[in-house]
Amino acid sequence: MKLQFSISELSSYLDEVFPQVVNQYKILALEPGYAKIVQNVSFKNLRPGGTVSGPTIFTLVDIGMYILLLAHIGKEPLAVTTNCSIDFLQKPNAGEQLVADCSLLKLGRTLIVGEVLVKSSNQENLLARSTITYFRPKVTI
Amino acid sequence: MKLQFSISELSSYLDEVFPQVVNQYKILALEPGYAKIVQNVSFKNLRPGGTVSGPTIFTLVDIGMYILLLAHIGKEPLAVTTNCSIDFLQKPNAGEQLVADCSLLKLGRTLIVGEVLVKSSNQENLLARSTITYFRPKVTI
Amino acid sequence: MKLQFSISELSSYLDEVFPQVVNQYKILALEPGYAKIVQNVSFKNLRPGGTVSGPTIFTLVDIGMYILLLAHIGKEPLAVTTNCSIDFLQKPNAGEQLVADCSLLKLGRTLIVGEVLVKSSNQENLLARSTITYFRPKVTI
Amino acid sequence: MKLQFSISELSSYLDEVFPQVVNQYKILALEPGYAKIVQNVSFKNLRPGGTVSGPTIFTLVDIGMYILLLAHIGKEPLAVTTNCSIDFLQKPNAGEQLVADCSLLKLGRTLIVGEVLVKSSNQENLLARSTITYFRPKVTI
Repeated sequence: MKLQFSISELSSYLDEVFPQVVNQYKILALEPGYAKIVQNVSFKNLRPGGTVSGPTIFTLVDIGMYILLLAHIGKEPLAVTTNCSIDFLQKPNAGEQLVADCSLLKLGRTLIVGEVLVKSSNQENLLARSTITYFRPKVTI
Repeated sequence: MKLQFSISELSSYLDEVFPQVVNQYKILALEPGYAKIVQNVSFKNLRPGGTVSGPTIFTLVDIGMYILLLAHIGKEPLAVTTNCSIDFLQKPNAGEQLVADCSLLKLGRTLIVGEVLVKSSNQENLLARSTITYFRPKVTI
Repeated sequence: MKLQFSISELSSYLDEVFPQVVNQYKILALEPGYAKIVQNVSFKNLRPGGTVSGPTIFTLVDIGMYILLLAHIGKEPLAVTTNCSIDFLQKPNAGEQLVADCSLLKLGRTLIVGEVLVKSSNQENLLARSTITYFRPKVTI
Repeated sequence: MKLQFSISELSSYLDEVFPQVVNQYKILALEPGYAKIVQNVSFKNLRPGGTVSGPTIFTLVDIGMYILLLAHIGKEPLAVTTNCSIDFLQKPNAGEQLVADCSLLKLGRTLIVGEVLVKSSNQENLLARSTITYFRPKVTI
């Protein structure tokens, strides 16, 4: 596994092809097979009970894995999620940032499988664990 | 399985406890064990390639199932998602609404399991299929 | 979706390439996009508490989906499972046969996704629900 | 997390309540939150193509997690699997033993969630990864 981008190159590329997520996520670390992403949590991310919503955590998982695979396969924005399973293990608290540890389990020619562990920035405990599969189309643009 | 709310009662209750999703979803049908939800798609819901993003679909699944379980268990806003698996089967097109067919598979005292089928409003084909489990806390508020 | 085999042709082919499952499963119905499979349950299929074990149900899901895809793609024995999620909804009783309703959700050139509903032959209730994905290798033998 | 059994006590208890799996699995290591299990592979575990079948790997995941939770919650044989998702990442080779690294992600009063990594005994690579949830009934026997 070899990286195709530095953190700053990858951040600029994402701003260009994925304007919807600008300023919501920051890449903290990028290594072969691994990325650490942080997300700021605001009111719109909460759900009844004042905790961070499931969709907020899913979005972090999906973006984190997308960042990780672009870092390894290069400018292939059309890679699509085919499957995701996620277990929510603890309620996050409002007002804390979420941190995602993203690791590649398989970097195949067709399928890319990764694991994302979501933690609260203030605590050691695991909030959620997810496996996510991306499909790599044959033709890149 | 018996409904605790009408569509209008449930819509009002959701507006109250879950202001984050006001005006994003509409309940089209509600029957014992079943709900149909529609979501409007806008620019923020798109991803590179111009299709609807995975997190948008996950959010529809999660909200649809939350609406369905509230309809059956009553005012228990603290029920939380514990597990979700989702398969993305086809790319949705931009500019189409998404429709979710939500069905209860199990309405247990502790665990509630549902299936959500996501379709585009303009086509017959299945875009995504998901199973989602909610945990029902013992104490309600 | 078009069938490549009749039930008896498919049963003979399975006996040939998959001797490990001979006499354990029977194909009850086969239609475009759908197969119904029955499994006999014996002592080896039970777990502590006297109910049918999870692995027995998973095996039925996997075999049922394998039969369904062979029926549609023809003699391609190397198709492999890449992902499966399964929810166990009710305990089956010992002494009952298990019946699997297997449906194709997507029959793609690379990925084949199906849903399997497992029921007890004596009851209407759903015992387990599963989504399973097979990967279709490019070269067939 | 505190262990309720030694390896030999747990092996004896399993032989007693779960005669179906006698001599098929061996507990190699047991620590708080972790167990390593090995499985012997024979002809009945193979599938078309000569590789180890998916159900064999699922069975190892299920047994490994059952062993791990009994080790932590004591004699509660009725704990049941409610959900499992599994990704098959590489084909195992015939003739190799399978090794499962089983870890507890959550040891709740009602739900117990674990992760199982399945490797071939001859190679470093990951063959499959699974998350599995057990439900703990209120009354123990």
